[in-house]
Amino acid sequence: LAGSPPAWIINFGNELLIGRIVNTNGAWLARELTLAGFDVRRIIVAPDEEPDAVEVLREAGRRARVVVCTGGLGPTPDDRTAEFLAKATGRRLVLNDEALRMVREKYASMGMELTEDRVKMAYLPEGAKPIPNPVGTAPGIHLVVGDTHYFCLPGVPREMEAMFKEYVRRVLATIAKPPCLFEASVIVEGVPESSLAPVIKRVAKSRPECYVKSHPKGDELRSPVLDVRILCHHDDCGVAERLAREAAEEIARDAEGMGGRVAGLRVERLRD
Amino acid sequence: LAGSPPAWIINFGNELLIGRIVNTNGAWLARELTLAGFDVRRIIVAPDEEPDAVEVLREAGRRARVVVCTGGLGPTPDDRTAEFLAKATGRRLVLNDEALRMVREKYASMGMELTEDRVKMAYLPEGAKPIPNPVGTAPGIHLVVGDTHYFCLPGVPREMEAMFKEYVRRVLATIAKPPCLFEASVIVEGVPESSLAPVIKRVAKSRPECYVKSHPKGDELRSPVLDVRILCHHDDCGVAERLAREAAEEIARDAEGMGGRVAGLRVERLRD
Repeated sequence: LAGSPPAWIINFGNELLIGRIVNTNGAWLARELTLAGFDVRRIIVAPDEEPDAVEVLREAGRRARVVVCTGGLGPTPDDRTAEFLAKATGRRLVLNDEALRMVREKYASMGMELTEDRVKMAYLPEGAKPIPNPVGTAPGIHLVVGDTHYFCLPGVPREMEAMFKEYVRRVLATIAKPPCLFEASVIVEGVPESSLAPVIKRVAKSRPECYVKSHPKGDELRSPVLDVRILCHHDDCGVAERLAREAAEEIARDAEGMGGRVAGLRVERLRD
Repeated sequence: LAGSPPAWIINFGNELLIGRIVNTNGAWLARELTLAGFDVRRIIVAPDEEPDAVEVLREAGRRARVVVCTGGLGPTPDDRTAEFLAKATGRRLVLNDEALRMVREKYASMGMELTEDRVKMAYLPEGAKPIPNPVGTAPGIHLVVGDTHYFCLPGVPREMEAMFKEYVRRVLATIAKPPCLFEASVIVEGVPESSLAPVIKRVAKSRPECYVKSHPKGDELRSPVLDVRILCHHDDCGVAERLAREAAEEIARDAEGMGGRVAGLRVERLRD
């Protein structure tokens, strides 16, 4: 959402970089941040290694108001996100008392002692706050540097989602105001994308609160099918809905005027 | 794969940034590039707008031997990847004769004429080659700048995959040698990740051709389940397989020594 505070998402993980898994964490966070009123400008998958991880974290901090990163918080030696974040922000990596208490309590409850690999999870950049992990053992990291909030969460989706919902959302609500978001979709058959292009251009230009984009689903030449998506945001839900509906109806009317068939038109509110 | 030529993937698209769709193109390309012998260092979702798109393309060109980008090649006004690539590489955007011929033939075959929005798809950075699109209408872009190859493909998965297989793969084969890749997976129950950490460290350290990573699937404290993945590469397939198998067996043995149960061990070759 243009005009909203910028957010960057960084997902660390080799399994993502070799294409063994799809970055569902990135999409989940992107939706959450959009709904919370942020303008997501990047979703970056990067290696959890130096210098790459440090560079990406530093660049994100320069550009975004909110940086959410996932992965690299666990007890294994290649879980080094806290260290990279410390380097990226010029902080020392220190044993955080509150984080150590969290980690100790988790293991103590199972009669397990603190090994070096477990204590490692309590080292955070100086000045950071640990984010409670209600599902697993590794605390997350909340670090404020100037105007920028860094949130580092585990890569395990269940843990990441729980920590985002219970902690990150509350902080985000102090930074941005969630807008009302309505999305319309118009399915047009029989009009090539290149023919509908001038209509899309006009509809988008007359509604700065909306983002309009055609997605070709069929064969542009033989049997074109387009899914035109219109995303509108406004403080007033009634206005957001009306903008989306009117834009969709205008596109449907023009497509029919070109001999196309409207196979579907729906408007829905995006929300959790 | 460390030591291989670096590759960056850039996926343009607002639907990705608002979390409406998951970046499956990024994962598909990451797997293909890994199998082709490249070290994928970034998968970046970025807005198809200035200055972001230009900055990301420029940075990728400085850092990678191969840059694959998707999206923004179609006939609508916000399809501006060719323009952004021209700016990022300091080239002029010019009407490419070969691309114009491709676009004209596509539409002529259906008795459709060339409109301004259709001709737009034939404007490429000076010196670029159009990549034939066997599925849709928009040609891709192959631009060599110094040592770096840029390949820009459409965002529609069917088109992107066909163009990659028919054109990009052939060029990649002249730059890197595909290694043999074997991946082993060991499912360990009853050992917390933090207890297995020293084993992982030792196994990884003794095999520089392998990447070893534990993925927690259960509950670290109450009922830990780990999927330990070992990815090994070598020119010799026999060696790659042996490295992966021996690493997996060593981890399984040590996990059992700690009172864990090995619920599964498999070794498979990664290939198309």
